[in-house]
Amino acid sequence: MRDFSQDHHWLSLNTATVRKQWSLDRIIDECARRGIRAISPWRDQVAAVGLESIARQLRDTGIALSGYCRGGFFPAADAAGRQEALLDNRRAIDEAKTLNAPCLVLVVGSLPGALSGQPHYTDISRARAEVHDGIAATLEYARQVNMPLAIEPLHPMQAAERACINTLEQALDLCDELDPPAPGEGAATAHEQSCDLGVALDIYHVWWDPKLAQQISRAGNNPKKNRLLAYHVCDWLTPTRDLLNDRGMMGDGVVELKKIRAWMEQAGYRGYSEVEIFSETNWWRRPGEEVLDTCIERHCRVV
Amino acid sequence: MRDFSQDHHWLSLNTATVRKQWSLDRIIDECARRGIRAISPWRDQVAAVGLESIARQLRDTGIALSGYCRGGFFPAADAAGRQEALLDNRRAIDEAKTLNAPCLVLVVGSLPGALSGQPHYTDISRARAEVHDGIAATLEYARQVNMPLAIEPLHPMQAAERACINTLEQALDLCDELDPPAPGEGAATAHEQSCDLGVALDIYHVWWDPKLAQQISRAGNNPKKNRLLAYHVCDWLTPTRDLLNDRGMMGDGVVELKKIRAWMEQAGYRGYSEVEIFSETNWWRRPGEEVLDTCIERHCRVV
Repeated sequence: MRDFSQDHHWLSLNTATVRKQWSLDRIIDECARRGIRAISPWRDQVAAVGLESIARQLRDTGIALSGYCRGGFFPAADAAGRQEALLDNRRAIDEAKTLNAPCLVLVVGSLPGALSGQPHYTDISRARAEVHDGIAATLEYARQVNMPLAIEPLHPMQAAERACINTLEQALDLCDELDPPAPGEGAATAHEQSCDLGVALDIYHVWWDPKLAQQISRAGNNPKKNRLLAYHVCDWLTPTRDLLNDRGMMGDGVVELKKIRAWMEQAGYRGYSEVEIFSETNWWRRPGEEVLDTCIERHCRVV
Repeated sequence: MRDFSQDHHWLSLNTATVRKQWSLDRIIDECARRGIRAISPWRDQVAAVGLESIARQLRDTGIALSGYCRGGFFPAADAAGRQEALLDNRRAIDEAKTLNAPCLVLVVGSLPGALSGQPHYTDISRARAEVHDGIAATLEYARQVNMPLAIEPLHPMQAAERACINTLEQALDLCDELDPPAPGEGAATAHEQSCDLGVALDIYHVWWDPKLAQQISRAGNNPKKNRLLAYHVCDWLTPTRDLLNDRGMMGDGVVELKKIRAWMEQAGYRGYSEVEIFSETNWWRRPGEEVLDTCIERHCRVV
């Protein structure tokens, strides 16, 4: 396992972590100042500053992306809505290309309207079918422009509103269906190649899963290519007071971060460890400088 | 599928649903008045009135149990704590016998101390091993006195504090390990027999699971005996504002109640449908009469 204790070479910052404090251009400057080598920005943060401006700033500072957040939200109330979702995902892919992202992260969506408390329908299997079709359609374009798609399984507590893909096993089943191993591609080269469709593993969403170790191993030892495209860290607090925005700083909760990272690395993952903390009542209220410094310190100590 | 629309013959009341309004003796009277034929009481509610008194009242009113809540919480900080948990589970079994319960529901526990925000350790696989051993030990006594144990898989959002068994598949794997099919026992008699170790399926905890239909079928078509010992209903609200006490009344959320009940019945389940609603800001604040009347009306209409 790589030694993270001496520096923060493999730390990436998901920029939602300080979204309440700073605009994205300031975030990039603050990362550059601290030697943070990569970020994963959100589309609305990019749009607020301007895509070309952010692309230029990234080149100037030498900061890379560990992912781009996010595509997805495929299910919709009607065909027009589903078509608009596909167009929007295409735009997200184009932005990801402009920013030279290694993958577009997909939060796939679920019951249309549920996010605003007015679900258009309640058939989650229908939502799953629409996600299947949406990813299949998006994958065609993603392949043309060579932008890998990373499905992020979301915690089951977000199954109604945000994502109907809720376990790593379920995500990998979908990957195998839509991006099957080609005959003759052997495991020998698995860790050399990225793939068209893989997963973004966020420990917040999957830490509880009794099949986590088994499925991480499956993702890495895929006969086609390594499906592990991104790795996100934070922590699960006890108690957790909110279903979305009460994530903990690494070390403040119960997730066995080193154990899970060891599973990732045994499965061939060699990418960034991306810190993503949504924290309405704690970290979003602190000075951004303190948040970044704490991320770096904890990343060295507990990740 | 049984027709629930004409009466509430198969409605059971989990007495936590009106725990804030009434003591258990009053709850039993209110159920008897409405022709509710079964309840599932909690140990603290029984203790507050007195075990023998409740047993007598149940006989007098002719009200049955659909389950007894609850045993479990096996993991502990040390050996003494684990031993105390075993003794407490034995007492729970004795109470369940006194009340003529068909099963003791197990909320198995997880990281010791996490419920009070001070986890003694964070190794969830260790908690799972302690749960395995705790159920194995408890099962010996349960078999002696003929009291089936029903493992309740809890929603992954409660994995740290309340239960480290979080999917039906995981629960059934444990059942198969601790209560394996005996040679020669065929599927032909599966639906005739109950079993020593099975599951309590609460839709609140499992509705999101992409493997739910498959695993319900597995539970019913077990080569030994039907593992489906209890079925709990309520609803999942969008948004959900609390990780424990924001359950919805059937029909107010996004769970496909009729679809899941159809799976249960196809798998051979013929028992009660038990209403269990923890609702800090809504149903616990309404008059108990209104809550029970609403449960009955919704049970006929949407369950």
